[in-house]
Amino acid sequence: MTEVPSNHPRYHSLQLRERLVHGLKAGLATEAGLLAHGRGEAFDYLLGEKSHDFAAEAIAVASALLLTARLPVFSVNGNSASLAGQEINELVKVHERMVVEVNLFHHSQQRSSLIANYLRELGVPHVVESSVGPSVALPEIKSARRRMNVEGLAEADVVLVALEDGDRCQALVNAGRKVIAVDLNPLSRTAQVAHVSIVDELTRVLKLLATQLKSDQNQTPEELARRIAAYDNAKILDQAIATIRRGV
Amino acid sequence: MTEVPSNHPRYHSLQLRERLVHGLKAGLATEAGLLAHGRGEAFDYLLGEKSHDFAAEAIAVASALLLTARLPVFSVNGNSASLAGQEINELVKVHERMVVEVNLFHHSQQRSSLIANYLRELGVPHVVESSVGPSVALPEIKSARRRMNVEGLAEADVVLVALEDGDRCQALVNAGRKVIAVDLNPLSRTAQVAHVSIVDELTRVLKLLATQLKSDQNQTPEELARRIAAYDNAKILDQAIATIRRGV
Repeated sequence: MTEVPSNHPRYHSLQLRERLVHGLKAGLATEAGLLAHGRGEAFDYLLGEKSHDFAAEAIAVASALLLTARLPVFSVNGNSASLAGQEINELVKVHERMVVEVNLFHHSQQRSSLIANYLRELGVPHVVESSVGPSVALPEIKSARRRMNVEGLAEADVVLVALEDGDRCQALVNAGRKVIAVDLNPLSRTAQVAHVSIVDELTRVLKLLATQLKSDQNQTPEELARRIAAYDNAKILDQAIATIRRGV
Repeated sequence: MTEVPSNHPRYHSLQLRERLVHGLKAGLATEAGLLAHGRGEAFDYLLGEKSHDFAAEAIAVASALLLTARLPVFSVNGNSASLAGQEINELVKVHERMVVEVNLFHHSQQRSSLIANYLRELGVPHVVESSVGPSVALPEIKSARRRMNVEGLAEADVVLVALEDGDRCQALVNAGRKVIAVDLNPLSRTAQVAHVSIVDELTRVLKLLATQLKSDQNQTPEELARRIAAYDNAKILDQAIATIRRGV
C-alpha cells in the first residue's frame, strides 16, 4: 500500500484499507473480504463518509436492545476483526455481559483461532468460536458457519452482526434472534431483513454505540422498552436509501 | 474463494472476483486493486450488472476515435490485465495498430514485467512497458507512472484507459491526448475528465468494443468524424448517474 498523508480527504477510509490489508497478511481476513470491503467503501463514499441521523437513531435502539438482552452476542468475522478489533474491545468494556463469537463465511479453523486469539490479546474477555466446543446448528444454513456455540449464539436473544452475509442474517432472524446489523448497503439482504439496520461504517458505529451504551446505563428498562417499541426500521432504511440517492 | 454455481444470479461478477484473486496470487494485481475492484462492483450492482444505452453510445464513439487515431494506445494496469487479459487480446486482434502499454499506479518493475509477459503469452502482439526503454515524462505526475514509452503513450494521440486513477487521467487530457475511460463510477474524476466515458464493466465493454470496431471497419473517415463531433460526454454521464440513482 502507498503512504497516505493525514490531510488526504479520504485519510480515514484509506487507513481502514491498510488495516484490512494487514488483516489479510496476518491471516485474519481473506481476499474475498477485501473485495467485499471495497463494495462497502463505495456506499460509504455515497454517504459522504460520515454518520447520519438514521444511523444515530438505529444505534440508540441497538443500545436499548443490547442493554435489556438476556445474552447479547456480537458475531465477528475476519473483516470486522481486522477493521475494528480495537473498537470491539472498547465496546465490550462498556457492556461487559456481551459475548464475542467468531463465525466465518469462508471457514477455516486456523483463521478462526487466529481471530479469537487476536481479540483476546487486545483484551476482549469473552471470546468463543462457533467451531470450537459444543454447538447447536442454525437451521437453513448448510456450511460450517451454521454452528452456534452453546456459550454464545445458541443461547443469545440479541445478536449484533457486522458485514454479514444475507443468508445467515435471515436464518438468525428466522431462528428467533433479535438481529442488529451494521451494513453500509441499505439494499443488501442483511440490511433488509435485520430488525435494526445501522447503515454506517463499522468503526464509526462502534464508537458511537459505546458512547450510547454509557449514556443509557441509568435509563430504566421501561424507558428502553419504549424506545424499542417506537422504532421503525423500514423508515430508517428509506432515509438511508434517499441519502445515498442524493449522493449519486 | 468459494465455488460458485453457474446459476447464481451474480455468477459473472463472482467469476471476475476469482480472476482478480488469481491475479493477486500470480503477482499481477495488488491488495489495493482488490479493494478498488470492490468499489467498482458496488456501482455495477447499482447498474443491474448490465450494459446500458449510454455505454453503447460511448463505445460507438470510442470505436471511431480508435479507428481514426494515428497511434491508439491501451494503457493497462494490474486489475485490467487480471480481469480482462483475454478480452484485451481479442480487442487488439480486431484493431492491430493498437499498442498495449503497461503502466502501474503501485509501480514495481517485477509486477510490470509479469503483466507484460502475461499479455504476450496470451498473444497480444505490441506490448510495451512505461518503465522499460526510452520514455518521456507526463507533466503533473510525480511517481514512476509518469513515464510514457516512446513507442506507446509518448506518441499516442488516442489513449484508452481502464480502471484508471483520476490524477493520471487528468494529466493525459492536459497533455493533449484524447482519452477514452472505462470506469463504473460516473462520479469519479476519471469519468468526469475523460473525453469519452464508458460507464460499464470492463470485460463487457471490451467485447462490445471489439464487435463495434469490426462493424465500423468499412465506415468512411468522414462518417466516423461526424459521429465523434456529435458526441456529448456530459449528457452520457448524466444518463449514467440517473440510472444509478434509480437503482438505489
